[in-house]
Amino acid sequence: MGEVISGGLTAVPGIEAAGVHCEIKKNKRDLALIYSTVPAVAAGVFTTNLIKAAPVLVSARNVKEKETRAIVVNSGNANACSGQRGLNDAERMAIITAQALNLEPEQVLVGSTGVIGQFLPMDKVEKGILKAAQVLSREGGSYAAEAILTTDTIKKEIAYTFEISGKKVTIGVMAKGSGMICPNMATMLAFITTDVKISKPLLEKALQESASKSYNLITVDGDTSTNDMVLILANGMAQNPEINEEGEDYKEFLKALNYVNRQMASNIIRDGEGTTKLIEVTIKGIIDYEMGRKLSMGILNSNLVKTAFFGEDANWGRIITAMGYSCQEFIPEKVDIFLGDIQVMKDGVGLIFDEEKAKEILSHKKVQVLIDLKLGSEEITAWGSDLSYQYVTINSSYRS
Amino acid sequence: MGEVISGGLTAVPGIEAAGVHCEIKKNKRDLALIYSTVPAVAAGVFTTNLIKAAPVLVSARNVKEKETRAIVVNSGNANACSGQRGLNDAERMAIITAQALNLEPEQVLVGSTGVIGQFLPMDKVEKGILKAAQVLSREGGSYAAEAILTTDTIKKEIAYTFEISGKKVTIGVMAKGSGMICPNMATMLAFITTDVKISKPLLEKALQESASKSYNLITVDGDTSTNDMVLILANGMAQNPEINEEGEDYKEFLKALNYVNRQMASNIIRDGEGTTKLIEVTIKGIIDYEMGRKLSMGILNSNLVKTAFFGEDANWGRIITAMGYSCQEFIPEKVDIFLGDIQVMKDGVGLIFDEEKAKEILSHKKVQVLIDLKLGSEEITAWGSDLSYQYVTINSSYRS
Repeated sequence: MGEVISGGLTAVPGIEAAGVHCEIKKNKRDLALIYSTVPAVAAGVFTTNLIKAAPVLVSARNVKEKETRAIVVNSGNANACSGQRGLNDAERMAIITAQALNLEPEQVLVGSTGVIGQFLPMDKVEKGILKAAQVLSREGGSYAAEAILTTDTIKKEIAYTFEISGKKVTIGVMAKGSGMICPNMATMLAFITTDVKISKPLLEKALQESASKSYNLITVDGDTSTNDMVLILANGMAQNPEINEEGEDYKEFLKALNYVNRQMASNIIRDGEGTTKLIEVTIKGIIDYEMGRKLSMGILNSNLVKTAFFGEDANWGRIITAMGYSCQEFIPEKVDIFLGDIQVMKDGVGLIFDEEKAKEILSHKKVQVLIDLKLGSEEITAWGSDLSYQYVTINSSYRS
Repeated sequence: MGEVISGGLTAVPGIEAAGVHCEIKKNKRDLALIYSTVPAVAAGVFTTNLIKAAPVLVSARNVKEKETRAIVVNSGNANACSGQRGLNDAERMAIITAQALNLEPEQVLVGSTGVIGQFLPMDKVEKGILKAAQVLSREGGSYAAEAILTTDTIKKEIAYTFEISGKKVTIGVMAKGSGMICPNMATMLAFITTDVKISKPLLEKALQESASKSYNLITVDGDTSTNDMVLILANGMAQNPEINEEGEDYKEFLKALNYVNRQMASNIIRDGEGTTKLIEVTIKGIIDYEMGRKLSMGILNSNLVKTAFFGEDANWGRIITAMGYSCQEFIPEKVDIFLGDIQVMKDGVGLIFDEEKAKEILSHKKVQVLIDLKLGSEEITAWGSDLSYQYVTINSSYRS
């Protein structure tokens, strides 16, 4: 049994970080640097959008190296749709970081988030990297977590310790994401550090598995970004026997990784653009993960479902409608649907229910929807947000 | 060359209609009846949603009969997710209509639209059908068009005449649709009458072809309804030589059918829930229809694109992002994008453009987006709406 501890990335031994202001944005921190004082192995998952931002291309290549030492990330500019110049700029971010920290450029991963289609102000970015390298510290995690935010209203970080073979292991995460959130087999920006000792192939496997149960099951608006990435650095300082097979130690690590990633994923939704409530959809009786993902994302991306939740209207007809156009493989006559503890559909037919009680359930900050397909034995839980006036306000004037 | 004439369905010789109030809704007409005084052939396209409303099931069966004489439609209640009782009710609507008009029940098609998951008040519906049968007339088209509306703010009808082999032919259409609009290889409610003489197989083919270029290329909210249907009745009173092959006469008829259906489709979007502007997306250089449909629907269903248009913000990065997650088969480095006559992307890279001029273009009631993929020789045009505060207002309290 592990426990949540204070701090984020830099709660992990051997991890230093910084978050500085380099003037891409007017007043806020906009450049983050993460550094492992000892060599670490890394893994990443990246956007499946055909349009991939330059930093995604550079990181997807560099993450394949045997050793990784640093991650540099800017906010305020996505460096996407920026052509060859954008690619050069992303490479340059790795080169400048490597020079400042006495590393090889291939040991550096790069991330960007913000407006699409503008070139990075590289003079500012370069100065920012040098400044960040100078102030790297074991207390810098929170500044880094601040420096990657865009329309987010709260900082998202978590740290968690647990034991593997008698050794204390720590995982730290920082993430950002509020709009353009529907990571499809990939995810938004999240950076994870840990001192676990693990082989690169198993770190890759654990990250894939964990992302599929966390970041890949959330949606704010159905829009999969060009810049999504989750990166993890594992520097081995916990001195546990190296995890190099899928035994008990791997399972312990995966459990902890799942815990922190699911926390961060639901935090991203709670801070979704204009979100007034978190909608948690659990689907039981599914045949496989893909079926559950299609159905849960179909429901949570439906504007009609989302506005009904915002209006606290128990209009479950919109839920079954969204299921029907999202997946052709369930049996309508078997479906049960519950809102909180009220059953609204049984065997595919609507029930008379207490509207007042339903209204009360829908007025909470978190609403649980339970669906039973009665087909298979798998289960999935996914998270989404409602659609409010505030979402329209935020997104009708994002660039201005 | 044909021309638009006044009226709708009943501009067609031999077609009578009525729209009455039977008290499913409080104050508005809610039951429509269409009748052909002579035997007609019919064709239909229906929702692809796995959850199909009872009237969809009944009409999809009855439309296969050799002759069709009448269509009965109620609004205010979708008769969906209503189990065996709902199916019995839909059959009963056909039976009552047949009795009132001295027809066989199989010669009657049935449609419903409104709230999902409630049973039809059959006593009211039955009285409504009898009342409608008594007031059927050649002037009733507009009343019928009124009686099928739900959140629509305007009546949607059109009539068009043209010539086939020297004979005057007329087509009339009435349609409804404002929310839950993203007909996927099917469509919302539209009812078309014509006096053309045509074989049933060719009428089916023409309707399929025309729906794919009109109703299947519109979206308000990405939600494919459980009740979508387009029905056409052709009663042959124009006395043209029967169309039974894909020759010149078929092409003339298809051209006219495309014209009226595309008019109605864009009218549905103009009246989309909370719509302040019509977004017309044309994609050139596509390889095939499916590619164009995926891309255009991807763009037009993106809440980020829709809110940017509402805010009159030329944030084209959201357009290319939506394209990237909707289709994996284009080449990003070839893409050109224009907003009105301003080019914002060339060969996959953003251009500097006049923001003031872009703002002016986006302030119009209709905004044209032109995308060139420079891959194939096909072209597609699709229509969508922006996402406004009003959409949230309408949909957060639909049932109340």
